[in-house]
Amino acid sequence: MKKTFASDNYSGVHPEVMEALLRANTGHAAAYGADEYTGRAIAKFKTFFGNDIEVYFAYNGTGANVLGLSSLTRSFHSIICSDLAHINVDESTAPEKFLGCKLVTIPTKDGKIYPHEIESKIQRVDDQHHPQAGVISISQSTEYGTVYSVDEIKAIAAVARKHKLYFHMDGSRIANAAVSLAKDFAAFTRDAGVDVLSFGGTKNGMMFGEAVIFFNPEPAKYFKYIRKQGMQLHSKMRFIGAQFEALLSNDLWKRNAEHCNRMARLLEQELRSSGIEITQPVYANGIFAILPPTITSALQQEHYFYVWNERTHEVRLMCSFDTTEDEIKNFGHTLRGLLKKNP
Amino acid sequence: MKKTFASDNYSGVHPEVMEALLRANTGHAAAYGADEYTGRAIAKFKTFFGNDIEVYFAYNGTGANVLGLSSLTRSFHSIICSDLAHINVDESTAPEKFLGCKLVTIPTKDGKIYPHEIESKIQRVDDQHHPQAGVISISQSTEYGTVYSVDEIKAIAAVARKHKLYFHMDGSRIANAAVSLAKDFAAFTRDAGVDVLSFGGTKNGMMFGEAVIFFNPEPAKYFKYIRKQGMQLHSKMRFIGAQFEALLSNDLWKRNAEHCNRMARLLEQELRSSGIEITQPVYANGIFAILPPTITSALQQEHYFYVWNERTHEVRLMCSFDTTEDEIKNFGHTLRGLLKKNP
Amino acid sequence: MKKTFASDNYSGVHPEVMEALLRANTGHAAAYGADEYTGRAIAKFKTFFGNDIEVYFAYNGTGANVLGLSSLTRSFHSIICSDLAHINVDESTAPEKFLGCKLVTIPTKDGKIYPHEIESKIQRVDDQHHPQAGVISISQSTEYGTVYSVDEIKAIAAVARKHKLYFHMDGSRIANAAVSLAKDFAAFTRDAGVDVLSFGGTKNGMMFGEAVIFFNPEPAKYFKYIRKQGMQLHSKMRFIGAQFEALLSNDLWKRNAEHCNRMARLLEQELRSSGIEITQPVYANGIFAILPPTITSALQQEHYFYVWNERTHEVRLMCSFDTTEDEIKNFGHTLRGLLKKNP
Amino acid sequence: MKKTFASDNYSGVHPEVMEALLRANTGHAAAYGADEYTGRAIAKFKTFFGNDIEVYFAYNGTGANVLGLSSLTRSFHSIICSDLAHINVDESTAPEKFLGCKLVTIPTKDGKIYPHEIESKIQRVDDQHHPQAGVISISQSTEYGTVYSVDEIKAIAAVARKHKLYFHMDGSRIANAAVSLAKDFAAFTRDAGVDVLSFGGTKNGMMFGEAVIFFNPEPAKYFKYIRKQGMQLHSKMRFIGAQFEALLSNDLWKRNAEHCNRMARLLEQELRSSGIEITQPVYANGIFAILPPTITSALQQEHYFYVWNERTHEVRLMCSFDTTEDEIKNFGHTLRGLLKKNP
Repeated sequence: MKKTFASDNYSGVHPEVMEALLRANTGHAAAYGADEYTGRAIAKFKTFFGNDIEVYFAYNGTGANVLGLSSLTRSFHSIICSDLAHINVDESTAPEKFLGCKLVTIPTKDGKIYPHEIESKIQRVDDQHHPQAGVISISQSTEYGTVYSVDEIKAIAAVARKHKLYFHMDGSRIANAAVSLAKDFAAFTRDAGVDVLSFGGTKNGMMFGEAVIFFNPEPAKYFKYIRKQGMQLHSKMRFIGAQFEALLSNDLWKRNAEHCNRMARLLEQELRSSGIEITQPVYANGIFAILPPTITSALQQEHYFYVWNERTHEVRLMCSFDTTEDEIKNFGHTLRGLLKKNP
Repeated sequence: MKKTFASDNYSGVHPEVMEALLRANTGHAAAYGADEYTGRAIAKFKTFFGNDIEVYFAYNGTGANVLGLSSLTRSFHSIICSDLAHINVDESTAPEKFLGCKLVTIPTKDGKIYPHEIESKIQRVDDQHHPQAGVISISQSTEYGTVYSVDEIKAIAAVARKHKLYFHMDGSRIANAAVSLAKDFAAFTRDAGVDVLSFGGTKNGMMFGEAVIFFNPEPAKYFKYIRKQGMQLHSKMRFIGAQFEALLSNDLWKRNAEHCNRMARLLEQELRSSGIEITQPVYANGIFAILPPTITSALQQEHYFYVWNERTHEVRLMCSFDTTEDEIKNFGHTLRGLLKKNP
Repeated sequence: MKKTFASDNYSGVHPEVMEALLRANTGHAAAYGADEYTGRAIAKFKTFFGNDIEVYFAYNGTGANVLGLSSLTRSFHSIICSDLAHINVDESTAPEKFLGCKLVTIPTKDGKIYPHEIESKIQRVDDQHHPQAGVISISQSTEYGTVYSVDEIKAIAAVARKHKLYFHMDGSRIANAAVSLAKDFAAFTRDAGVDVLSFGGTKNGMMFGEAVIFFNPEPAKYFKYIRKQGMQLHSKMRFIGAQFEALLSNDLWKRNAEHCNRMARLLEQELRSSGIEITQPVYANGIFAILPPTITSALQQEHYFYVWNERTHEVRLMCSFDTTEDEIKNFGHTLRGLLKKNP
Repeated sequence: MKKTFASDNYSGVHPEVMEALLRANTGHAAAYGADEYTGRAIAKFKTFFGNDIEVYFAYNGTGANVLGLSSLTRSFHSIICSDLAHINVDESTAPEKFLGCKLVTIPTKDGKIYPHEIESKIQRVDDQHHPQAGVISISQSTEYGTVYSVDEIKAIAAVARKHKLYFHMDGSRIANAAVSLAKDFAAFTRDAGVDVLSFGGTKNGMMFGEAVIFFNPEPAKYFKYIRKQGMQLHSKMRFIGAQFEALLSNDLWKRNAEHCNRMARLLEQELRSSGIEITQPVYANGIFAILPPTITSALQQEHYFYVWNERTHEVRLMCSFDTTEDEIKNFGHTLRGLLKKNP
């Protein structure tokens, strides 16, 4: 298939990751994580986050999020998140089914949730009749392509501490956020007060695999059982380990994220220069814009992407590690041609 | 790591599968299964099982089993299986947690369960107080390396039909069973009365990926939601599709299974010729034998394998697609040397 | 304890119900519902709703709601309801835990939800990533003491039918609604398109016990198992049956509801005549009013009731079958005295 | 219905309990347990078990068992119990559904499980693939009418402590056990090492209501949420409190249990003197005997009771607090008449 702006999971596997998979494919390796590749990948994570973390691999983002949240909750808890959160709208009812918890949602305009909004959702504490707030969960970068500042995250962490809640981050696009903030990973996760992090691999150039990282040892205690029970324990684990080792080596994670964030800014320019309304500030690798439906249909033939909101004609365009400048220029060219025909 | 007899998931990825992964890594592909590789893999499955089946990919065996069973049960059901079944002893409590069902187990000596045993577990039908038998689940080949004959499977299917139960097969090592029986897949699954099959890929040379195959369209109706909710829907699905396409092409599945079944028979000969007791008939790629603990410890240094039963000193030796005759001869050689020293 | 306006479950058991319990306490009776009292109670329900219904008793409102919804859903479904719905805010996370479903909520000002709001929540149909709308659930009378008209219910039923959803009604205060509407039960439930009804007993003068009534036979099919599994099957069932028989005989349900609805209107007059703002129209037995916090505290000493909303100073006053005119006059008298002192 | 030997829940409510219900039915009482009756009932429990216990009421035995076990488990745990345990065969799949745990069962001949059997089921500790033993659960008296001695219970508690498991007791017929042992309740529960106890009320003369008693404060920490989420929190709680207060006053619990245990011994004599085989020692209020099917059918017309095992023709006869000597003599008379006709 021709390249698209549909999603960062329409792209394939970065060549350096693929080479790592090939290199790992020699001889036997202990299953379920007791292999050297997994060991080295975890060591890499420790260079970013410190030695006293715990790292577990899962298959996909839904698995990483739901299992991480499982380690932070009992079934009578609620999880406070944005109404656009992936856990709320794009994981079927996996969170409710696996956790038994309620997701208490905050309507969001920019993909973020803010301390005063979160506090307003912490209700009826100690009331046996009411779901008890247990976790705050944010996405970084958000589903709207925006990025929390370090201070914004610290402010949410302060709410969590004040009310004795855990703080979870869905980092399926964490590399894009790190590049956007020009901060190292720890600065806006561990050091900012996050307890458990889903660290995304797939959208940043891996074939499969995400990591659940614990900065707080307590909830990690039984995680190996939770992961197995959650059907997310891979047998030939070396092939997740090898991928993460590659992604975290030679700044591959950063090169990929820098590239796709830069492509997103180029694409933003193409759109703005054509007079198209951009609905969200472009921090990471997603652009949200208003396009007339006829333009959208015609553009999709050439450069597939998704309509985000049928009613407002908002579309989402995602850049990937393999998006090229030429593709963006072609997109701009096609767009301008269509706009001329349909003024 | 040196090659082992630990498990068929200690081995890596078959080179033809790895090449398929490389070939699939070009350009973009629609996510979540709407890609050409997945389409072609499903078409391959249809050449084996018929056109009116439904095929869904999952990450691993636990996922394939639990989700397949989820499509066949309501939470008040019980699932009748062997007490050695993978779903009973090696999937944590994933079945209970995800399904809400009780596993009703039959003590087994050879890994199989038999019609009269199954019927004795169908109790208190229509009694609201008691778990209601809903599914019979067997493993083919079994956890003890044995293989049900076609007639044995048909006899179980007759029990299922008589009592209006569904019939599920855990085929994580289905290729080994097919080769052992010298039958095509359909003969001992669909044509023998199985409703839903977990078709194993990982243990037969894939990196990750299993298939859930429905021969009965009714329970497949909502499976896409069950899979997503069960956290088993892969985004970059083409990489599971491409692997299955390779495995099912050019008889790769069969060559791999024939090889490792043959290696198992060779290993059996080495053991028997050294006077070692073999506890189970060798049908597929696993050998179960009684070894003195001192021999076991020494052998494990060279050729790692697992102790199956601490009390009886039974060990399990698994052959894989990459096991070589030399390794088996070396194993025999080491064994005989140890036996001489410890007569 | 002195009588209160706290809740209709602060009151005790109506004398006619208590007499029925005494009468039922003779000799032995088959357990779990196979007794004559249960049989006669079900026959009474059929005089109201028709002969082709199915009736099951449960212990409490949470049980009746959650189990009724369980019969209407698979775990990948969502349930559309008001954000004030008892199932959303007063049943801990019982719905999420037992059903696995997501509750999709509509912000409500009057306790009701309306067709266009409901339709806006039916999103991403057939999209495996998103919870699939499965049920619309309303409360009649609502948590705000308001009552849906027959036409309003029919309009919601039309939405349900159009989108192939089930329609559930939480009728924990259904008698108050029936009296308010001056309609028989069937008119605004079965005849208006409701599929499953929680019919409340406890708040209308029983000691314990609610009924789950199926107007649609399909979802009732496995309900006996769901009830047992949901821990809501009473052994000495005759004592629920006898209560319902009494409640449904000699118009006791209606006398109780008429009385407490009338008391609510008297209380409304006392409040309005003292210049107190009533925030919701008084249809049934609950009154919502804005009271200055100092007045509230002082009043609560004499006539206990709950603050509904700390921020707006809204309070909830509930009348019960045993509320008397004198108590209401005393309340009004105390209120006026306090208002004079704190003008 | 004529009195039966079917079950101790075919009997009604003891008159002293019914009087307590009548007395409690005055004025208003705070809902959900904040009432004086509940307070006094809990105080009564403390006179038996000590002041540092926690007591919560539930509706029924399934609720008390499952919720008590919920406080002791995470979903990856297993619960070791007898294969005849009520939680295993008579609570549908409520334990699996609500807990997510596996029940690991020990085949029992006398209803009891023994330390060496329990230890053999504690397998694969720390192995992420395998359910982790979490709780030992026994019934006292057992489903076979037998009673554990204090020493037997202490020996099981020692296994629990050695392996860091919790120890749960299903005491739905605990009063019968106490009377049989001639011990106070604490001696064979708290003092013998039990952590959580389901204390039965219904079968000993109450209308509804069981208690969950915590001797270990840690697992009680979140129990109020677990109970609400488990749909077992009664609103008009005073009516459970009042019943327990009555049951625990004036030795009513003991008089009832002594009576029905004595009736069981009389019934045993009638059976033995007629040459009928008694299959279990009669400790409490149940008798298990082998009766020819023709005799059983004829006897059931007069004195209903259940066939326990169709294959062995074993029947179960339960005595209740309201069983009379005359009924037993009549039963013996009828039996002897039938035996004469069918020698």
